[in-house]
Amino acid sequence: METKEIVRGMASKAREAAFELRRVSTARKNAMLLEMAAALEAAKPEIDAANQRDLAAAKASGLAPAMVDRLTLTDGRFRAMVEGVRSVASLPDPVGEIIWTRQRDSGITIRKTREPFGVVAVVFESRPNVFVDTAALCLKTGNAIILRGGKEAIETNTALYRAVKHVTGEAVQFVEIADHAAVTELVRAVGLVDVAIPRGGERLIRAMCEAALVPVLKHYKGVCHLYVDDRADLGMALSILDNAKVQRPSACNAVECLLVHEKIAPLFLPMVRAWAADRKVVLHESDQDWEREFLALEMNVGVVGDFRAAVAHINRHGSHHSDAIVTNDGERAAEFLRDVDSACVYHNASTRFTDGAEFGMGAEIGISTDKLHARGPMGLEELTTYKYTVTGEGTVRE
Amino acid sequence: METKEIVRGMASKAREAAFELRRVSTARKNAMLLEMAAALEAAKPEIDAANQRDLAAAKASGLAPAMVDRLTLTDGRFRAMVEGVRSVASLPDPVGEIIWTRQRDSGITIRKTREPFGVVAVVFESRPNVFVDTAALCLKTGNAIILRGGKEAIETNTALYRAVKHVTGEAVQFVEIADHAAVTELVRAVGLVDVAIPRGGERLIRAMCEAALVPVLKHYKGVCHLYVDDRADLGMALSILDNAKVQRPSACNAVECLLVHEKIAPLFLPMVRAWAADRKVVLHESDQDWEREFLALEMNVGVVGDFRAAVAHINRHGSHHSDAIVTNDGERAAEFLRDVDSACVYHNASTRFTDGAEFGMGAEIGISTDKLHARGPMGLEELTTYKYTVTGEGTVRE
Repeated sequence: METKEIVRGMASKAREAAFELRRVSTARKNAMLLEMAAALEAAKPEIDAANQRDLAAAKASGLAPAMVDRLTLTDGRFRAMVEGVRSVASLPDPVGEIIWTRQRDSGITIRKTREPFGVVAVVFESRPNVFVDTAALCLKTGNAIILRGGKEAIETNTALYRAVKHVTGEAVQFVEIADHAAVTELVRAVGLVDVAIPRGGERLIRAMCEAALVPVLKHYKGVCHLYVDDRADLGMALSILDNAKVQRPSACNAVECLLVHEKIAPLFLPMVRAWAADRKVVLHESDQDWEREFLALEMNVGVVGDFRAAVAHINRHGSHHSDAIVTNDGERAAEFLRDVDSACVYHNASTRFTDGAEFGMGAEIGISTDKLHARGPMGLEELTTYKYTVTGEGTVRE
Repeated sequence: METKEIVRGMASKAREAAFELRRVSTARKNAMLLEMAAALEAAKPEIDAANQRDLAAAKASGLAPAMVDRLTLTDGRFRAMVEGVRSVASLPDPVGEIIWTRQRDSGITIRKTREPFGVVAVVFESRPNVFVDTAALCLKTGNAIILRGGKEAIETNTALYRAVKHVTGEAVQFVEIADHAAVTELVRAVGLVDVAIPRGGERLIRAMCEAALVPVLKHYKGVCHLYVDDRADLGMALSILDNAKVQRPSACNAVECLLVHEKIAPLFLPMVRAWAADRKVVLHESDQDWEREFLALEMNVGVVGDFRAAVAHINRHGSHHSDAIVTNDGERAAEFLRDVDSACVYHNASTRFTDGAEFGMGAEIGISTDKLHARGPMGLEELTTYKYTVTGEGTVRE
């Protein structure tokens, strides 16, 4: 069979499953999630063995150590993955929630309610936990999911799929085709796939957006900024800088660029250099590539004339993800927060808080740097659409 | 200059203007809208003359009468257009509205607020009022707008643009390039255009989606259904059918297909035929093309075994726009409303209510048949995104 036929066949099955899933109670969906967690635990030996096969192949083919690390399903990661499924079961179900009700003079009553999208396609790279995390979030929100993982994780993903498919039925579809054409078919399946979510690097995202006819929810880059104003508490600024850069440099909400007001630069930059030496952070103070996402103990440093120049710099070079100001001037902070065009803007706090759990969403399927539908951390609510239900008594329009 | 350079230059100006517009108060935006209305009235002679030139060219080139009608800016339409701008000024401004506030145990306070998208690109066909309607809605929501109209309306659109540009400045950009490449450049201007909205026929929409890299909010088709259950009040069913089909057959929320439960078909279909004869509605009772949008006094009629077959038919052949059930059985109605996967689902009411004003939104920029971001009528709120503002006191993540 052709890739197109296979992918469309899976999407059709997913669409049918989504229709059935809309009729399933919250209690039943939660029970399915707990069964899924138990099934994963029961299949741990097979999943581990499969992961070892992927790792052996990855090492033989000379995959970069960072990629090998992402691919590795350690015992700790396995436990966290299974616990993640259980915690999704314990979250409130957004489906069916009434957003508002209106009675109109025309005689109709309108209810706006949250509804599942229907079919979500997730294309991911080497981390096999994404398979389980996203499947759980989709099931909880009544969405069928079509998963397509990286070819380097094919054994692990297949084992995960085998472990859960007797619980999830057709609501979880797994694309085993290595050919990239499968991704193209997925994102062009208008009417069968409601939204596509890439979970991977910039190259994957760009390729998906280029081919897509269905809407894509995406996270491009996290080029986050910390601007230290001349009216800042420099001790606070250094503490935030340390947290935002060092705590987890590989995270998308880590800062990649420090901007310093020129008035305090002579005082603050030596403090920053001492901190960097202590923390082994490489500073780029000249020839900066302002749009670079380091994801490592490395960052750009720039001096700006005032806070407006900082805003302009961030809007121009940032990735509209998370950007912070440290200042004791409330008016400047308010202007910064209003004018910086990013999903999350911070005053006297670390950008590291951009995270579904930290925002009280319970779980996240990713962080959107888009503005349509979802911006910033995407939790269960962001995996839903809405519908208007209109009731009358034979009511017609005048 | 190349089309690409021109379009990107305009988009850059729009981006700058959007930045400034975010800083403008609601009172000032409303004043701009009133000035815009007055400027249009003052320029009526020039706009009328321009419309006459377009109409003469259209007739000379043999444009279809329906298209010529859409192109015509009658005195009544002109007045309605200007009043539309004034009514947008009187609506509440969604920008800056606080959606929620959360205090987290970590020490941060999070506020989720409504924000403008930034730059909206609207590509429309022959109706010149779309120029003014969409510009007003975008200005109100703090969005800059890039407008590209049909070449048959170029004189009218240019006159409208000349009339308002001294009020709107760079916040309204008008693409005069007839070449379709201008549309392609617009929808590929990632980082400059935040969302593209087609206002026109299926061909335009498909071409835009095919080329797009920026998100598109769209309305494909209105293939709306009326299902009459065997437990329906047939008088009510006929009254709703009459309203939904005859009141304004060219509207996207008019029904195109009547589905009748087989048990009452022998009784109800003769009533429908008599009604159709009286109202000059052409019925297709065999060889139906179920996915056809007539937009005229013409419709498909089908008989179904039960209400579940009706749901399946609608989900398969409909356009996920507006679909209705007429029944006195509350349980069936509830199932129908839950299971029909459409933006608006009706019980004992006419599909003609799918409309921004009827839903209490005050105005609409269109009706979305998509599920992402906006579904159903799109008002001012749907022209906004949101942002998270996080404040702390030197707060860092544990």
